[in-house]
Amino acid sequence: MKNTKTSHLRYAILTLCFAIIFPAIAAKKPVDPLPSWNNGAVKLAITKFVASVTTKGNPDFVAPEERIAAFDNDGTLWAEQPVVQLEYASYQIKKMSPQHPEWKSQNPYKAVLEGDTEYLINDYINNHGKEMFKLIMATHTGMSIQDYNKRVLEFLQTVKHPKFKQSYNNTAYQPMLELLTYLRNNKFKTYLSYGGGVSFMRVIAMDTYGIVPENVIGSFAINSFEQVNGEWRIIKGSKNMFMHDGVTKPVGIELRIGRIPIFVGGNVRSGGDIGQLTYSQSNELPNFQLLINHDDDAREFSYAEKDNASLNAAKSGGWHVVSMKRDWRRIFSF
Amino acid sequence: MKNTKTSHLRYAILTLCFAIIFPAIAAKKPVDPLPSWNNGAVKLAITKFVASVTTKGNPDFVAPEERIAAFDNDGTLWAEQPVVQLEYASYQIKKMSPQHPEWKSQNPYKAVLEGDTEYLINDYINNHGKEMFKLIMATHTGMSIQDYNKRVLEFLQTVKHPKFKQSYNNTAYQPMLELLTYLRNNKFKTYLSYGGGVSFMRVIAMDTYGIVPENVIGSFAINSFEQVNGEWRIIKGSKNMFMHDGVTKPVGIELRIGRIPIFVGGNVRSGGDIGQLTYSQSNELPNFQLLINHDDDAREFSYAEKDNASLNAAKSGGWHVVSMKRDWRRIFSF
Repeated sequence: MKNTKTSHLRYAILTLCFAIIFPAIAAKKPVDPLPSWNNGAVKLAITKFVASVTTKGNPDFVAPEERIAAFDNDGTLWAEQPVVQLEYASYQIKKMSPQHPEWKSQNPYKAVLEGDTEYLINDYINNHGKEMFKLIMATHTGMSIQDYNKRVLEFLQTVKHPKFKQSYNNTAYQPMLELLTYLRNNKFKTYLSYGGGVSFMRVIAMDTYGIVPENVIGSFAINSFEQVNGEWRIIKGSKNMFMHDGVTKPVGIELRIGRIPIFVGGNVRSGGDIGQLTYSQSNELPNFQLLINHDDDAREFSYAEKDNASLNAAKSGGWHVVSMKRDWRRIFSF
Repeated sequence: MKNTKTSHLRYAILTLCFAIIFPAIAAKKPVDPLPSWNNGAVKLAITKFVASVTTKGNPDFVAPEERIAAFDNDGTLWAEQPVVQLEYASYQIKKMSPQHPEWKSQNPYKAVLEGDTEYLINDYINNHGKEMFKLIMATHTGMSIQDYNKRVLEFLQTVKHPKFKQSYNNTAYQPMLELLTYLRNNKFKTYLSYGGGVSFMRVIAMDTYGIVPENVIGSFAINSFEQVNGEWRIIKGSKNMFMHDGVTKPVGIELRIGRIPIFVGGNVRSGGDIGQLTYSQSNELPNFQLLINHDDDAREFSYAEKDNASLNAAKSGGWHVVSMKRDWRRIFSF
């Protein structure tokens, strides 16, 4: 039997030595890596999972190079009401309109210039967003990537979110920022895997989320490499477009990473993230799925899917569902 | 004016202290990071460049996250005589032929089964390789990525190179392996950027070159995500193929990385690497271009381009041309 008195004494001496050598460390309480998350089942599941895949000797241990985490953006890392990239398209149409007098009488540009949201919503619901697509083309192609990046950055840093009255680059969800940092501190590589254009979020992914440009995965078209005024430039194109959404998200992730993420975050809206959450479950390694449910109209927004597809998939897959109302102590940093 | 005597003394004391505290380090001679490279202009240029971009305070200093290096594969990191992925296609056609009795009388399969290389070379020269493309389709699509990876690995680990009598996964150029390691030790991210299929080299890129799967860039087609016998799998497809070669290599790199590499390596053959070497020169950051010239028939192969396009581009761009004969002390590790 162990002599507990001696071992208590030994522990006390050790602690004292430690406190003398490293007073600052010894005085510190363990730091909560997720202070904006309320204590509860989801927070506990996250920290338990991270501990289990990072503890050597644990049967669930995952080597650092295999620790890949991928997150949707709109509705997962920041709000998707409104969809920011579409806001950008409208903003640019207005900015570009003096050079395009014909837009005044030509839809969908006319609808944007006149603020005819009904026309655009109708297109989205009844016309597969074909008109919306024209807006994207007019504002996202035919220019050098440098020029595009400059325009996007100016928009994201200056235009304010209609509800939160903050520029978009300040509207990331604080609990998700903490989660990204927590994962990276545990040697995860963090990726963005979202439905918008790959170049769009690359402009601010590093400053906003700490995600490097090469780790942004999104929809894309094939660009070209051309000489413009003697300078070689990538010119944004529109051919062979790949929409990175829903069931094609696993395809885009595989194309880009070549491995299956062990941690994937998405959100409830149109079933757009079911694909990538399902994909991460096809991993033979331990894996974790996080689905964000928007149920906090006071602090953010509250909305549900017509068919409940994402919540149903979460139930049958055993995914962890975040209630923004219940699980997040705060939503934003401001 | 500085008192050099005092400063010499100070230096001597410091060195002595250092030697007492860290005797092993102090005793060591500086290690040559590129022992398989002969001393000469190219080796010197490489080490000078790396020192200049990694030395803080140097006007050419580049932050670690911007230190991106990309290398072609065939003819740059290992031999391209024969082209390994085409060897794989032939190998698989032969392996699959019992399940396809019709191939015996149907070209291009017949040509492969009968060893009719003239038919295939003629197709390559006069028919844009359209028949070759059928071989690639038959052996690279319609199966799960897991199944494909297993087949490729078996081929690369067992089939021997016709000249070197080594399995392909052992035939990397030793000087280039040292260069990759040297760059990574200096916090470069190393990428493969090659004309073959992205999935093919991913299978061995880590074990052969220390390049992680997510850093392999190549040609691709759009796959699908499907349920096979109850399991969700990525199925290799053939739609919307993107050929990552020549002038499209910058496009593929931009799509995948979103930044311009500061170090790019390619080789002389069909002008296939001029695009990515030119692209790296469009970087505003300091940048380096390495072009490998195959001029060593005894130890590897000797061949030239009909139009000399790559060497001409190297001359006008000031790129560093490796003569395998002159610059490499050894070619392989075996």
